[in-house]
Amino acid sequence: MATSSAPGTAPEVLAEGPDVEQAVHATAARAREAARRLAVAPRADKDAALEAMATQLLASATAVLEANARDVEAAEGAGAAASLVDRLRLDEDRVAGMAAGLRDVAALPDPVGEVLRGSTLANGLELRQVRVPFGVVGIIYEARPNVTADAAGICLKSGNAVLLRGSTSARHSNAAVVDVLRAGLAAAGLPADAVQLVRGTGHEAAKALMRARGLVDVLVPRGGAGLIRSVVLESTVPVIETGVGNCHVYVDAAADLDMALDIVLNAKTSRPSVCNAAESLLVHEAVADVFVPRVVGALRDAGVAVHGDEWFQRETGVVAASQADYDEEFLSLDIAAAVVPSLDAALEHIRRHSSAHSEAIVTDSLEAARRFTAEVDSAAVLVNASTRFTDGGEFGFGAEIGISTQKLHARGPMGLPEMTSTKYVVTGHGHIR
Amino acid sequence: MATSSAPGTAPEVLAEGPDVEQAVHATAARAREAARRLAVAPRADKDAALEAMATQLLASATAVLEANARDVEAAEGAGAAASLVDRLRLDEDRVAGMAAGLRDVAALPDPVGEVLRGSTLANGLELRQVRVPFGVVGIIYEARPNVTADAAGICLKSGNAVLLRGSTSARHSNAAVVDVLRAGLAAAGLPADAVQLVRGTGHEAAKALMRARGLVDVLVPRGGAGLIRSVVLESTVPVIETGVGNCHVYVDAAADLDMALDIVLNAKTSRPSVCNAAESLLVHEAVADVFVPRVVGALRDAGVAVHGDEWFQRETGVVAASQADYDEEFLSLDIAAAVVPSLDAALEHIRRHSSAHSEAIVTDSLEAARRFTAEVDSAAVLVNASTRFTDGGEFGFGAEIGISTQKLHARGPMGLPEMTSTKYVVTGHGHIR
Repeated sequence: MATSSAPGTAPEVLAEGPDVEQAVHATAARAREAARRLAVAPRADKDAALEAMATQLLASATAVLEANARDVEAAEGAGAAASLVDRLRLDEDRVAGMAAGLRDVAALPDPVGEVLRGSTLANGLELRQVRVPFGVVGIIYEARPNVTADAAGICLKSGNAVLLRGSTSARHSNAAVVDVLRAGLAAAGLPADAVQLVRGTGHEAAKALMRARGLVDVLVPRGGAGLIRSVVLESTVPVIETGVGNCHVYVDAAADLDMALDIVLNAKTSRPSVCNAAESLLVHEAVADVFVPRVVGALRDAGVAVHGDEWFQRETGVVAASQADYDEEFLSLDIAAAVVPSLDAALEHIRRHSSAHSEAIVTDSLEAARRFTAEVDSAAVLVNASTRFTDGGEFGFGAEIGISTQKLHARGPMGLPEMTSTKYVVTGHGHIR
Repeated sequence: MATSSAPGTAPEVLAEGPDVEQAVHATAARAREAARRLAVAPRADKDAALEAMATQLLASATAVLEANARDVEAAEGAGAAASLVDRLRLDEDRVAGMAAGLRDVAALPDPVGEVLRGSTLANGLELRQVRVPFGVVGIIYEARPNVTADAAGICLKSGNAVLLRGSTSARHSNAAVVDVLRAGLAAAGLPADAVQLVRGTGHEAAKALMRARGLVDVLVPRGGAGLIRSVVLESTVPVIETGVGNCHVYVDAAADLDMALDIVLNAKTSRPSVCNAAESLLVHEAVADVFVPRVVGALRDAGVAVHGDEWFQRETGVVAASQADYDEEFLSLDIAAAVVPSLDAALEHIRRHSSAHSEAIVTDSLEAARRFTAEVDSAAVLVNASTRFTDGGEFGFGAEIGISTQKLHARGPMGLPEMTSTKYVVTGHGHIR
């Protein structure tokens, strides 16, 4: 039986080497104990804990910001890129946003206990399929410390204990936030060990988490392609792969070209650093003469570098696309572009290069829309809409742990129900076969 | 682009060593091509193929039985256990059963295209979540050649191409069955490469299948605990773990003891070799004085060896249980048994020893039933019913690819819907964010 650690004081696990695995597994064992209690906690208790977490976070903003200042200073001292420092930095508004996020999750319906199927079998057995928590969820994520509160809130509401493995660069911020969240849990009478940080610098601790099969039920990596790939390949714990988005916009022969221009610009430029931003543009050759000059001009005006095929290269400022550009998730003001001779060629290009996140077609042809939605094998397929809509908030899910790009369990934006499993409850009165 | 192989002639891939991976991946690439066509095939085409497969199987029974005789002879010559030879052996009835199974699957509703969620968002975007096939499914299984037809039928109906990796001992039988199934596909105008055997002896070919990430979408191991464990640990392709069942029956203080006796006997003896058979018996001490002698006598009469704790050992013929016995999936006429002082102790025993397949409580106490169903974290929790009911057929699913004991994607009996993923289709008219 694992010893529970004091509320508000996340246990220090800083050793490296062979001790790390043991320490991480002890943390996971405490999480399992906490998960047993969370699994049967009624909604009211979980919502009270979320509210207490939010209140504590606002009351402890100064301590959190002081811890964050240490991380920011260390990152700047180490010469980290400005974009990393920006993701790392918290301020009063961001802390308030974390608290508001926890309250938003409290307001969402509790997925646990939902009956998904129910029937009385021919022999009189009563069958029900009921949503239950996974148990222990591990989240491995990169710089942004607000993920710490967001992920903890979603896991708590879905009845799961969570093991948080943030990046070393955010370690003081994450520790401060987790201390506050644990105090909130304890104040509401729930086990503080339902939210724990997996400590220890370097790859050892993350690796121990990936090998904690039987102690951890699901791992969700959130971050860049390298992080996700490493978790997918190394983990013996089941993984939900999230987020890499090489999203395509295909402008069909039957497109409304004004609409196409708006959608391309929105998908590429409204927030280039996120996974649902467009990274590739395909244009049917029937409209290329008219559309390519217009879209290149508009993208150039918006500061976008176009990496184009020969057709696109006729336009000023377009650089030659390498084959690798068509596989790239730029996450910047860059886009790969090509002209295709047919819808079939567009489908083939997407099949070859897409990361299966989100692809959009702009068309007024019912048949082209029908084939595109049927044949593109991605988490989201959009017709006459920007790829930027693939998002838990936009879909009305209220909270999102990430966007799954795998086919097992969950695909697309993952809200609270996607953070649960099910079990069958079968009731008889002496039934035998 | 992979070259498609001739219908009715599964390509020979018998090389070993570094060539095996290449050969297996070429097979998988052909399966992906076939999967693209299957994904958009209407139900009528898939049902016609299933019917053609069944017809061909009956027409080719002699050839299938001749191939099977070669496997049986080789197994007997190698001194294989009688139980293995029995699982391996086909006869007219078993072939007819395979054909009937294919027709049963044809009669089931098509899961592909089902709309699971649909709404119009506040901004007018139309959102639909639609069932789609996984794509390419790999099945790794042991001796029984009828799994070849069953698995192929379920995968076809759910729109998936399948790669079948059977055991070496059944290789002639499996090859003969697959040839027949491929001829059925071709006769119905669907790609024969939707059903392929992964050939090559030894572990190399299975390993290549487990490493075919990006080519194979999901792997389902079906067989003993060793096989499943090896696939789970080695695979980089997402896995659905099936089948290991250390199922418990707990006889509560408030049990109807006649009912309890019937359920224990049924759960243990009606078919001891299957995963939903009971392997462990727990008895509340309040009824132990009366129930232990009765149940031991009845089990002894039924030929069951009881591995008991000290309490059980007072009865004639009970052997002392080792700690390992409580973790054992016997799959034979053996049962581990213990007396527990309370419901809490029963829950703790189950938490420690269960494989999370199926656990049953026999009780007339509403509170005991409520706590047992809420706190036991298994795929199926049964009240006053035998564990033997955890079965796709019994649950009314019509066909079953296996019973998932993991929490990701599917838990419990897996029918056709569990062999699918989903995608979001989002329709707008120029929507941007």
